Amino acid sequence: MSDQQTTLHDLKLRMAEFVRARDWEQFHTPKNLSMSIAIEAAELMEHFQWLTVEQSRNLAPEALDDIGEELADIVIYALSLSNFLNLDLADTVLRKMAKNERKYPAEQVRGKSHKYTYYQDKSGQE
Amino acid sequence: MSDQQTTLHDLKLRMAEFVRARDWEQFHTPKNLSMSIAIEAAELMEHFQWLTVEQSRNLAPEALDDIGEELADIVIYALSLSNFLNLDLADTVLRKMAKNERKYPAEQVRGKSHKYTYYQDKSGQE
Amino acid sequence: MSDQQTTLHDLKLRMAEFVRARDWEQFHTPKNLSMSIAIEAAELMEHFQWLTVEQSRNLAPEALDDIGEELADIVIYALSLSNFLNLDLADTVLRKMAKNERKYPAEQVRGKSHKYTYYQDKSGQE
Amino acid sequence: MSDQQTTLHDLKLRMAEFVRARDWEQFHTPKNLSMSIAIEAAELMEHFQWLTVEQSRNLAPEALDDIGEELADIVIYALSLSNFLNLDLADTVLRKMAKNERKYPAEQVRGKSHKYTYYQDKSGQE
Repeated sequence: MSDQQTTLHDLKLRMAEFVRARDWEQFHTPKNLSMSIAIEAAELMEHFQWLTVEQSRNLAPEALDDIGEELADIVIYALSLSNFLNLDLADTVLRKMAKNERKYPAEQVRGKSHKYTYYQDKSGQE
Repeated sequence: MSDQQTTLHDLKLRMAEFVRARDWEQFHTPKNLSMSIAIEAAELMEHFQWLTVEQSRNLAPEALDDIGEELADIVIYALSLSNFLNLDLADTVLRKMAKNERKYPAEQVRGKSHKYTYYQDKSGQE
Repeated sequence: MSDQQTTLHDLKLRMAEFVRARDWEQFHTPKNLSMSIAIEAAELMEHFQWLTVEQSRNLAPEALDDIGEELADIVIYALSLSNFLNLDLADTVLRKMAKNERKYPAEQVRGKSHKYTYYQDKSGQE
Repeated sequence: MSDQQTTLHDLKLRMAEFVRARDWEQFHTPKNLSMSIAIEAAELMEHFQWLTVEQSRNLAPEALDDIGEELADIVIYALSLSNFLNLDLADTVLRKMAKNERKYPAEQVRGKSHKYTYYQDKSGQE
């Protein structure tokens, strides 16, 4: 299967079956799942911990498999939390995207990051 | 749209357009996006920080909107990282799920969490 | 040495020497160190990921060494960031404590966590 | 007070009193405190989320107060966890530093970060 064919529903269903077959609903509570997502996010960060931002753009092909697995773990726990909360994840994501589009009008924020005031620009350019 | 109709491809495309329209590809690098996911995961955790695991099962309906938004932010950055890495996210997630299914055979792990040895069971039962 | 004898200055100095001897100042930048603290915090969380809050109160003695090491890693990176920022850490911590004391007057917050409205109290008691 | 005069014991004592006066020992459990450290670490990261590593070296003076407060919050929760676990924090940190010194011999790791294989060096130099 691929991104073109797989719906959020497909993934949520597969994850729900995985959890149910192991009687892990008792562990997959919102508090525990939020910790789990944060833990997997940290494992993802570990790959980039000492790299410059620029170096992180040029990852070795061998690194991609590991990085994909960490990203998958994050999504997996997000699916499980959606299942617990009975949340339509696609709808929730699309509504948040629409909110972000209004919050950050393209013409106003183009090419600017948010916290640009936090550092001293010594070059005259960002 | 809903989970039944929305593919990963739909969401990735919408996110790619959001980033491109703002010329934010320069910020949406793997290093920065891994931090972003971790930051949003922490905002999700904040809702459960002082709750017991049990209390986190019984969330007030008013809390669900906020929690959905935090979860959406995590997924949004995960989509953006998939875009950057040119990763088939559905495929990556499904392969990781298959790996987890082999790693944790249902009959062996049923009802057991992994780190059960870390606490002293004073009741004779978990 | 022990908590009674060791000052923050002692620890910061030891850490500064460790970093300098390895020529790691180039890596120990604020951005990287903030990631490092978050990564170590996640490793600490991993020990409690699937435990109830109550179970986390009753840790097996064997777990304490591992947990102490994760906590040490967090503090170590915090010391290194203090060194980079030329920050008087004791002073910074004591001022934040004083601020928290004013923000959370004992008589008003006694026995209450902050986000208590996030769950439905079904028992009539917290 | 300052880093030269303040011991870990001083800080732990002040924190223990803060928690006790509010009857917050019930919330300051290892599971919750590990989440709290991760949450504060994320708030620290937020300041550097979109900066390059280099930009994070040149912080605006106005940013330092905010950053100091986030770092203080991390240390504050680390102190509270040390109190809960009855841990000599200075001793734990110094033993971990000694372990790191053995693990990363200066002459072998000088100027090298650990995960240097994760990116493609296109310049012939790191």
